[in-house]
Amino acid sequence: MADIDRREFAGILSAAGLAPALSAAVPSRVTRAVEAPANVTRTLAGYVVRAKPDDIPAPIVAEARRTLVNWVGCALGGARHETLDHAIAALQPFSGPQQATVLGRAERMDALTASLMNGMSSHVLDFDDTHLKTVIHPAGPVAPAILALAEMQPISGRDFLHALILGVEVECRIGNAVYPAHYDRGWHITGTAGVFGAAAACGKLLGLSETQMVWALGLAAAQPVGLREMFGSMTKSFHPGRAAQNGFTAAVLAAKNFTSTDVGLEGKSGWVHVLSTESKWDEITGQLGERFELRLNTYKPFACGVVMHPTIDACLQLREKHRLTADQIERIDLSVHPLVLELTGKRAPQTGLEGKFSIYYAAAIAIVAGGAGPKQFSDALVRDPVVVALRDRVTATVTPGIGEAQVKAAITLKDGRRLEQSIEQVVGSVERPMSDADLDRKFLDLADGAIAVPQARKLLDLCRNIDRLPKAGELASAGGATG
Amino acid sequence: MADIDRREFAGILSAAGLAPALSAAVPSRVTRAVEAPANVTRTLAGYVVRAKPDDIPAPIVAEARRTLVNWVGCALGGARHETLDHAIAALQPFSGPQQATVLGRAERMDALTASLMNGMSSHVLDFDDTHLKTVIHPAGPVAPAILALAEMQPISGRDFLHALILGVEVECRIGNAVYPAHYDRGWHITGTAGVFGAAAACGKLLGLSETQMVWALGLAAAQPVGLREMFGSMTKSFHPGRAAQNGFTAAVLAAKNFTSTDVGLEGKSGWVHVLSTESKWDEITGQLGERFELRLNTYKPFACGVVMHPTIDACLQLREKHRLTADQIERIDLSVHPLVLELTGKRAPQTGLEGKFSIYYAAAIAIVAGGAGPKQFSDALVRDPVVVALRDRVTATVTPGIGEAQVKAAITLKDGRRLEQSIEQVVGSVERPMSDADLDRKFLDLADGAIAVPQARKLLDLCRNIDRLPKAGELASAGGATG
Repeated sequence: MADIDRREFAGILSAAGLAPALSAAVPSRVTRAVEAPANVTRTLAGYVVRAKPDDIPAPIVAEARRTLVNWVGCALGGARHETLDHAIAALQPFSGPQQATVLGRAERMDALTASLMNGMSSHVLDFDDTHLKTVIHPAGPVAPAILALAEMQPISGRDFLHALILGVEVECRIGNAVYPAHYDRGWHITGTAGVFGAAAACGKLLGLSETQMVWALGLAAAQPVGLREMFGSMTKSFHPGRAAQNGFTAAVLAAKNFTSTDVGLEGKSGWVHVLSTESKWDEITGQLGERFELRLNTYKPFACGVVMHPTIDACLQLREKHRLTADQIERIDLSVHPLVLELTGKRAPQTGLEGKFSIYYAAAIAIVAGGAGPKQFSDALVRDPVVVALRDRVTATVTPGIGEAQVKAAITLKDGRRLEQSIEQVVGSVERPMSDADLDRKFLDLADGAIAVPQARKLLDLCRNIDRLPKAGELASAGGATG
Repeated sequence: MADIDRREFAGILSAAGLAPALSAAVPSRVTRAVEAPANVTRTLAGYVVRAKPDDIPAPIVAEARRTLVNWVGCALGGARHETLDHAIAALQPFSGPQQATVLGRAERMDALTASLMNGMSSHVLDFDDTHLKTVIHPAGPVAPAILALAEMQPISGRDFLHALILGVEVECRIGNAVYPAHYDRGWHITGTAGVFGAAAACGKLLGLSETQMVWALGLAAAQPVGLREMFGSMTKSFHPGRAAQNGFTAAVLAAKNFTSTDVGLEGKSGWVHVLSTESKWDEITGQLGERFELRLNTYKPFACGVVMHPTIDACLQLREKHRLTADQIERIDLSVHPLVLELTGKRAPQTGLEGKFSIYYAAAIAIVAGGAGPKQFSDALVRDPVVVALRDRVTATVTPGIGEAQVKAAITLKDGRRLEQSIEQVVGSVERPMSDADLDRKFLDLADGAIAVPQARKLLDLCRNIDRLPKAGELASAGGATG
C-alpha cells in the first residue's frame, strides 16, 4: 500500500464512512469559500410541507393554469416525434403496470416511466415554457411527475395545481441561486435544477414530513441530469423527462424513509458547491410564500429561436391590420440587431429545420400562413413557390439602436403604400405575454395530429378548469390517444 | 424583453438549438482551457465495440473472476439491509416484468430496477472492491447491470466476464482522467464515472455499433449520480445502484438509435470539462487493450475503515501462528500512525458501528473471533465481557516512522513471552492481495444469513467458473432467495 498517497488514503476512509472525522486530519487540495447559511434545505423543505393552496395569490394560480395549458399542448405536439418512438421502444420492455398515460399516445406505462416520456415529449419541439431569469423550462420536470402520480392516487385538481406551483418555485429558486455560473459551466439547468422541482411537488402530494422532504431534496441533489453538450440530439429532451422521473423517484423513496443528507443543497459537498461556483442563498430561502417565480414564466408563440420572434410578431400584426396577402407585397425590409443575421441569416433554406435559421423565411411564412407554429416549419412549406418568391423579396439590414429582441419592419406594397411596424416588446415576453386566447390556439394547433379535435377541446377545458376537478388524474387519462 | 440580458438571451437561443452558432457571437463568462484531443469518446467506444475476449490477458481474466466473487458476496451480505427493504418497498409498485433476480432476496423485478437494487446491496456494507488509484468501487455500477441483462437474453459466461472487464476499464480510465480534482470537488466518483462503465458493458452485450456506443456514452455523461455529501446516509449506496441503472438505460436507448452527442467526454460542455477541472486525456485513450485497470482492483478483508486493517492483520497473524486465546494475553501494544488514533481512537465503544471506530476493539475482536467481517461488528460482540476485558488491555501509541497503512503490534502473554508482528504491506493491498481462499471465505461469510450454505457453495462455484457457463443468467437465478 506504499504507493497510495495521502489523498487516496483519505478517499478510502471516506468510502468507509469516515469522512467527517478525517476532514481535520487531511487538508483538502481544493479550498472553496463555504459560507452557506444553516438549514437552507430544511427551510425550503419546511416551506413546501406547510404551504397551503389558500395562501397562493390568485394571479399566480392563474399563471399556473396557463403553464399547464402550454405544457399539455407541447406534450401533445411532441408525442409523435421519433424521439418518443425510440424511447418507448427501448423502455417499454421494462415498464411496470400501466398506471399512467403517455399524452397523445396509446401506450400506457408505469408512472415513473410515463413521467420520463411526457417530460421528453413536452420539450422535444423546444416550444415549452421558459423562466427567463434562469432559462429553466419549469413545467417539463414537474408537470409530468405529478400528472403520473395523479393517476395512481386520488389528488384533487386544486392540490395538483398547488404542487405544480411549489415545484416550479423550488426548481427556479435553486436555479436563481446558481445562475449563470452553473449554466455557463455547461449544465442544462432544466435537468439539473428540475429534479428538485419534481421531488418537491411529488413529495408534497405524497404528504412527506419535513424530514422526509429534506431527504427527497437530498436524493434529488444526487441525481442531476443534463449537459449542454447534448443540445442538438435526442438526449436534450431526455433531460427534463429524466429529471421528472428522478425527482419522482426521490420522493417515493423518501416516503418510505430512505434516508439522505440533511444538507443536500448547502453542504460542503452538496449540490450548490459541487455544481456551481456561484451561490446566492437568499434566492432559495428569501421571501418564501411572498414572491413566486411563476410570475416570470413565459410561453413561446413561435416554434423557432427567439431571435426571429420580433420579425414574425411584426409581420403578423401588419398582416392582420391590413389583411395582407403575399401577392400584394413588393418587398419587406427588416432592420435588425447583428445577432439576427449571425444566427438566422440563411437566404435559401431547403428544409423545415433550415427554415428555423432563416429570418427571410420567417417574415414570408408569417405573411403567407398567418402563424409560425411547428407546422409552419415543414419541408413542404419551406419549398412552397409562393413562400419562396416572397422570401426572396425580404431584406434584412443590421441597424444601430435595434435590440436583440426588437425589429423595425417595413412592407412596401405593389400599390406603392409603405406599412411599418416596430416591435420593442415582443409577444411572449413577460411584458407582453401571450393572451389566454393565444395559448388556447397554440394548444389546439399542437394537439392536432395527436388527438381528435373534440378530445383536444375537452382536454383544454380540463386544463383551464383544473382546480375544480375532483381528481386531477382525469386530465391525464383524457389526454391519451386511442389505437 | 428589455430586462433580459445578453447572457439570458444567449441561453434562450441555446435552448432553441442555436448554441453552436452563438458561441462566436456571445462571449462566455467562463474561460476554460479546452485542449481535448479529437475523438476521445469515439476512440473509447470503438475499442469497446471491437474488443475480443481472446485478447484479454489471463491474469486480468482471473482478476475479473475474483472481482465477481467479491461482488456477489457483498451483494448477498447487503441484501437484507434495511436500505434494500425501503428501496424495494418504494419502487416495487413501479417495477415491470419479473425479469431479474435481486441477489439474496425473494423479490424479482424488471432488469433495470434489479440492477439498482443489486448495485445498492453490494455497496451498503462498504465492503466491496476498490480501485485505489481513483477510489472507484468498480464492480458496483457494472456487475449488476450486466447480471440483470444476462437474465433477459442469452449471454455466455465468457462474454459476461469480458463485458465486466470492459466496463471496469471504461469507468476507471475515465476516473483516472479526472481524479483527484473531480473527487475533491465533492463527486462520489463511483456513481459519476460508474455510469459509463455500465453503459459500455451493457452496450457491448447488446451489440451496439460504434456510433451507438458513442451515444450510449453520451447518455451516460448526461446522468452522473452521487455527491459525497450523501455519505453516512442510505443515499450513498444508492449511487452505484443508480449508476448501474442509468448506464443500462443509456445502452438500451442507444440500441434503439436514441441519439446523443458525439463528444460526451471531450466536448466543451461535455462530462470532463463540466465535472472536473482536471483532464488527463491519455488516461482514457492511451494503451487501450494493453494496460487494464482491473489489475489494480483490491478487496477488503475486514468490514471497517482501512485504517484499522493493519492492526487486525497483525493480530490475526499472531493468533494463528501461536494459537492464541484471549485469556493467555496480558496486554497488546500497538505502534501506530497519528491518523489511526484521530479516526479510530474510541476507547469504549458501545455499538457495532462504534466498534468500527475503535482500534482497541479491532485488536481484541481479531484475537477473540479470528476475523473482522460484518458479523464481528455486532452490538453483542462489542459488549461481550471477554472482548471488553481484552480491549481494555490494548494500548496504542503514536510512533514516528510508522505509515498510515502500517502497524507494529506486540503481545505480551501472561507467561511472560512477548510476540511481535510488523505489517508493512497490509493484506488486501495490491502488493499483498487477499488469496482466492480468503475471498471464498469472505463470500461464504457474507452469504450466510441471505441464502442457505449449499446454495452459497453452488453460487460461489458458478462465480469461480463463470467463463465456462453457457448462460451467465444461471448465476443470477442461482442467487435469489426463496420465500
